[in-house]
Amino acid sequence: MPYVNVRITKEGATPEQKAEVIRRVTQVLVEVLKKNPETTVVVIDEVEADNWGVGGATVTERRRKGI
Amino acid sequence: MPYVNVRITKEGATPEQKAEVIRRVTQVLVEVLKKNPETTVVVIDEVEADNWGVGGATVTERRRKGI
Amino acid sequence: MPYVNVRITKEGATPEQKAEVIRRVTQVLVEVLKKNPETTVVVIDEVEADNWGVGGATVTERRRKGI
Amino acid sequence: MPYVNVRITKEGATPEQKAEVIRRVTQVLVEVLKKNPETTVVVIDEVEADNWGVGGATVTERRRKGI
Amino acid sequence: MPYVNVRITKEGATPEQKAEVIRRVTQVLVEVLKKNPETTVVVIDEVEADNWGVGGATVTERRRKGI
Amino acid sequence: MPYVNVRITKEGATPEQKAEVIRRVTQVLVEVLKKNPETTVVVIDEVEADNWGVGGATVTERRRKGI
Repeated sequence: MPYVNVRITKEGATPEQKAEVIRRVTQVLVEVLKKNPETTVVVIDEVEADNWGVGGATVTERRRKGI
Repeated sequence: MPYVNVRITKEGATPEQKAEVIRRVTQVLVEVLKKNPETTVVVIDEVEADNWGVGGATVTERRRKGI
Repeated sequence: MPYVNVRITKEGATPEQKAEVIRRVTQVLVEVLKKNPETTVVVIDEVEADNWGVGGATVTERRRKGI
Repeated sequence: MPYVNVRITKEGATPEQKAEVIRRVTQVLVEVLKKNPETTVVVIDEVEADNWGVGGATVTERRRKGI
Repeated sequence: MPYVNVRITKEGATPEQKAEVIRRVTQVLVEVLKKNPETTVVVIDEVEADNWGVGGATVTERRRKGI
Repeated sequence: MPYVNVRITKEGATPEQKAEVIRRVTQVLVEVLKKNPETTVVVIDEVEADNWGVGGATVTERRRKGI
């Protein structure tokens, strides 16, 4: 019954890539912790660059500065 | 002061249904745990089918396969 | 497949009360949004009074001041 | 390495305001807890008024009633 | 800069198993989404069986009933 | 009505430091976004070093290696 939340900046991950992340993260929980895949939930949140900050600056600001 | 986060796949829940969920979940916390409704926050996140996985597959993939 | 996270301050909710919250919140999602109860997950987090703040003060501070 | 999630109702916060929140919240963690700003992540979620409830009613309902 | 939160019921996952989950989930984000591992954070929350519900019942209740 | 969740590794933050974080983060939301402090909730989660990973390794492993 695990619940996994993956939060990333929104920058064009394709449905195939997201499906691959979900498939493989589920597999990790099955293989390492013997969890039941059928009740393992993985939710991906894609967050706008204006709303994600690291080092005290938004990703938008960091890109502008070439960080 | 409870905080409740309800995460569901986005599939057309109406404003009225969401208001009903918020009203009733708040009521549960008031009745069972004697929480103050005025400071009880309930936030609903609606997640795209491509971003929600269960059983190692996205909801999009599951619908395509008729699961 | 909904996921619900209920966050409350830790102040002696009994296992019976927590089970009741889980049972009734699940029921709300089934009745209002027609969700499948079997795949509805509800997780309760109980947070220490020192770690929960409202109005700019921790619950510990508020209790000391009789707020 | 702290992770901070700020959830607010969506009502027109500008990129500059969000950058300011991120800058200052990061600074708080650096000054008070001596955290490394370079690995401090702050994510802002802006939630629609229909999806945010307090006092058992959505923000949409509260505005309609002038609460 | 991804942030991943893995929530599982507390049932004796060892430090080695948790390190393995963190190592492999990070690797998935690097391989599939080309994320930088150095700024990828994975946090595991272990939740008591009394606080985790599925199918409207706590894990404690389910174990008692042999579900 | 904002809700803020601050997640840090557990390493001896004092009640005073946590109260200071809560006081100042609330102030940021009041000053920058004109939020009402009375309904602003800040919750701090302190996570064990075994359960927090960055760069693919737990904080426990990183300390052992002097990273």
